[in-house]
Amino acid sequence: MPNPTAAMLVIGDEILSGRTRDSNAHHLAKELSAHGIDLREVRFVPDEDAAIVGALDALRAAFDHVFTSGGIGPTHDDITADAVARAFGVHIGVRDDARALMADFYARTGREFNEARQRMARIPDTATLIDNPVSVAPGFTIANVHVMAGVPDVFQAMLAGVLPTLTGGKPLLSQTLRVDRGEGEIAEGFAALAAEYPDLSMGSYPFVQNGAVGTNLVIRGTEPGRISEAMTRLAALFPA
Amino acid sequence: MPNPTAAMLVIGDEILSGRTRDSNAHHLAKELSAHGIDLREVRFVPDEDAAIVGALDALRAAFDHVFTSGGIGPTHDDITADAVARAFGVHIGVRDDARALMADFYARTGREFNEARQRMARIPDTATLIDNPVSVAPGFTIANVHVMAGVPDVFQAMLAGVLPTLTGGKPLLSQTLRVDRGEGEIAEGFAALAAEYPDLSMGSYPFVQNGAVGTNLVIRGTEPGRISEAMTRLAALFPA
Repeated sequence: MPNPTAAMLVIGDEILSGRTRDSNAHHLAKELSAHGIDLREVRFVPDEDAAIVGALDALRAAFDHVFTSGGIGPTHDDITADAVARAFGVHIGVRDDARALMADFYARTGREFNEARQRMARIPDTATLIDNPVSVAPGFTIANVHVMAGVPDVFQAMLAGVLPTLTGGKPLLSQTLRVDRGEGEIAEGFAALAAEYPDLSMGSYPFVQNGAVGTNLVIRGTEPGRISEAMTRLAALFPA
Repeated sequence: MPNPTAAMLVIGDEILSGRTRDSNAHHLAKELSAHGIDLREVRFVPDEDAAIVGALDALRAAFDHVFTSGGIGPTHDDITADAVARAFGVHIGVRDDARALMADFYARTGREFNEARQRMARIPDTATLIDNPVSVAPGFTIANVHVMAGVPDVFQAMLAGVLPTLTGGKPLLSQTLRVDRGEGEIAEGFAALAAEYPDLSMGSYPFVQNGAVGTNLVIRGTEPGRISEAMTRLAALFPA
């Protein structure tokens, strides 16, 4: 049975303007690989309703899961929850379960649970909450869409809560052979080997170190025995 | 007149598997902001013909420019040039101009210009070459699509050649006010100010430093006078 598939939607003007470098996509990619869910696409869109809804509708129809990051804070540019509700055609408002969590937190920390902060308790109907052990304001899952914060610490904590609840497949494993040759010298033999192992994915990644060129040859797949077999043949093709 | 728009397509299994963290999107975002071209969307897709063609067709129809990164090397998994040719319905083959550049380079450096390396001279008909001052194998521009390498040094060098040839608009400028308060405490006043300046984009980015919360308030726009005016009012709202 093939692994479940996933896409990610990174939401935020600050990413597209170059102010902030996204790190959540790379974190998610590593975590999904380990969990046996195949990340198939990532999109970055601005904080605009039409862009979010359009991308979300395309991705949730095409893949088993969609993970979003960004736009669920208390300020006027945080419009992700409303856009998700619109995409699903459900009502959104401050929900009692989310408000209770947050009211308790702000009472304990002696800060005001004001109107802006209550905005973070706006959750679409039918969604289930995603725990936020860092700063309490929850994410949520609705159907196959998991809506999480953009702040990396919070994104990572939310993902750590969600991922164990999702059915995974076989983890994507990889082995790497480093060769002291350029890609152009290994391409022919590498392609021939790849053609013999259609169940594996083989990629080559050139680098320059201390003025010398080299290439990392990577074999990826879900069957450790097959990867090792192919790697043995690859090492024989390109001895150190 | 509004600024030209752009999208980016990052191509490569190694990005989606989490092996490699993309850095080209962030570099492009900064460079386009400075050049007055609005980056509106980024997509990451795997080294698969249908995924590349599908994303490319959507993006080139929706935006003034599309920049791609990755998949133009000599190995079997480098299929970007062929996918781009298919998207445009044009022939692709080893082209004399690209071959001449590369043959000269390999002759000078005493390395074999073998079949795999000649693969990097495959350029779609009607495309113009993009100079590669790092490792010679060129990128290319076809219509509004600029096809560049994934290796960051090469991507950056190619972009530095392409960008001055594109008509830019007004650079996206920004000013940041750092406040020692959480987002929830500044949200109301910030939103009211943002509503008065619909021509500017205002965003807030929380952080935690030494256990204390703070927020960076960013005002973005293309008119320096407007940004400064709004920033003066923002600073008065939230004095240090």
